[in-house]
Amino acid sequence: MQSVCRSWLLLTCFVLFYVIYLVLGALVFSSVERPVEDKLRQDVDALKQEFLNQSCVNAASLERFLLKVLTANKYGVSVLGSASVASNWDLVSSMFFANTLVTTVGYGYTAPLSDTGKAFSILYALIGVPFTMLVLTACVQRIMHPLVVVPVGHLQRCGMQPRVATVVHFLLLLAVVVLCFFVTPAAVFSALEPSWSFLDGIYFCFISLCTIGLGDFVPATQPQQNYRQLYQLSVIVYLFVGLMMMFLLLRTIHKMADLHGLTSFLQLPPCEVDLDDDRKPIVEDRHEAFLTEKEDMRPLEPGSQPSYNTINTS
Amino acid sequence: MQSVCRSWLLLTCFVLFYVIYLVLGALVFSSVERPVEDKLRQDVDALKQEFLNQSCVNAASLERFLLKVLTANKYGVSVLGSASVASNWDLVSSMFFANTLVTTVGYGYTAPLSDTGKAFSILYALIGVPFTMLVLTACVQRIMHPLVVVPVGHLQRCGMQPRVATVVHFLLLLAVVVLCFFVTPAAVFSALEPSWSFLDGIYFCFISLCTIGLGDFVPATQPQQNYRQLYQLSVIVYLFVGLMMMFLLLRTIHKMADLHGLTSFLQLPPCEVDLDDDRKPIVEDRHEAFLTEKEDMRPLEPGSQPSYNTINTS
Repeated sequence: MQSVCRSWLLLTCFVLFYVIYLVLGALVFSSVERPVEDKLRQDVDALKQEFLNQSCVNAASLERFLLKVLTANKYGVSVLGSASVASNWDLVSSMFFANTLVTTVGYGYTAPLSDTGKAFSILYALIGVPFTMLVLTACVQRIMHPLVVVPVGHLQRCGMQPRVATVVHFLLLLAVVVLCFFVTPAAVFSALEPSWSFLDGIYFCFISLCTIGLGDFVPATQPQQNYRQLYQLSVIVYLFVGLMMMFLLLRTIHKMADLHGLTSFLQLPPCEVDLDDDRKPIVEDRHEAFLTEKEDMRPLEPGSQPSYNTINTS
Repeated sequence: MQSVCRSWLLLTCFVLFYVIYLVLGALVFSSVERPVEDKLRQDVDALKQEFLNQSCVNAASLERFLLKVLTANKYGVSVLGSASVASNWDLVSSMFFANTLVTTVGYGYTAPLSDTGKAFSILYALIGVPFTMLVLTACVQRIMHPLVVVPVGHLQRCGMQPRVATVVHFLLLLAVVVLCFFVTPAAVFSALEPSWSFLDGIYFCFISLCTIGLGDFVPATQPQQNYRQLYQLSVIVYLFVGLMMMFLLLRTIHKMADLHGLTSFLQLPPCEVDLDDDRKPIVEDRHEAFLTEKEDMRPLEPGSQPSYNTINTS
């Protein structure tokens, strides 16, 4: 029971640190990039005015103007009148950017303009990416039991063979994930974003949750959108929970491949063993085995390791 | 010995399938996207000509023109005269795009324009992303022995304590990776790309090998570059080998964390056990244990599992 409490306390600390890390990152990105963005925006606006004021437009001047416009656009500074109100580096937008860095989604809709911003991005991702993977792993580890081990056990108690039970469970889990993290969000995005079709929504969800993040579709980028900051925060939460579910699906597939002998056939490493909060974690056994193996070569008993693979014994 | 041959044969098949998958993807992307890109390019060129031909430029017409220019630019079609020669969807560029999809780097410098292209991207990544992870895992598994197990063993034979040996080895490995996959490529990129500084090169390498792929810096996108297609192919190889080394670093860190009791302390899963080609793979034992555990509860002996953690016994 104490172990369960410690486990959840650790998870709470991880998630809390994750949020604090995002806020701190946002504060730095905002303070470093906002002045540079403001300067670029002023330059582009001045350039546009100058371009409009000239008596005749020739190919060469248009080319020069467009080159500057496209360069500014690469950094999320649009020359369009309607887009020039909101900043890409306010606190919530910076948090959105920090989140896409540490989750490795990286839309690139906005990117740091200054050398300080670029150097900070490297440092921030260097700590943030492994830490986010750690937080996601810790979360998935805690939801494996209620979402995978318990349902598979239940299917087996209903009379299913272990291998059949894992396949049926996986298909059900997949259906739930597709419905909750692809179809429903796609419908919401296509309703909230004026120019997005339902396919665009599905495409965005898929490209994001695979961490590809092409950035051709990024929600909450229209400055005139209502509750834009709340919308951005919701997308941050969606990305985190969605990635967690993708990790869960991947681990379930890996464990299923172990069970069906596929990893063994392809000579790939099996999925790591599970920790059950109620029992002594296997890592401690292994650690002890490493530390004391010269003195005591006692074997690990597979029956003592609570895992997805031994579920049919329950 | 037979197992070693089978292992390397499997790896060769994986890498071969990976290359075939990229080429097939490139063929589809090129055939689907190139006509749409050509059409968009023509439209943008016509629009530019029309804009230049009008007698007076007012704010409203400039706004309409810029909106279309920026939309085309989002899909990699530039209105600039110098950029209008090369296609983003020739065979090698499409392969470059396919590679950024399956490695989840996703620069987004080019993105599919058509609905068919978007739907195909989803399908392509759905198979390609897990397959690429599988190929990278298989590669890392094979290079773990010469690049991690052997050097750590050597350091131990030189009289180092196991924990100290793993730390020293990790620092050496890190230095080699930083030099070969960050510093050297950054110097090359800053020499080949006219507008990139050395920091830009480091930033590009880091953002790419963390699979963030913001896309603010993408090499080989200048149409006038010499040997552009060879350059793109080199970047594809760089990304693949670089990601492999990042996976290797991550696995080494994970194993080091196991050894130092950090994963156990944080209640996270330990790194999966290694397969040694000369011995019976542990997965087969585990699989057999699962299949027969009701009849035969024979324990797994940790000493029989060749792993990084047991290296000091050798």
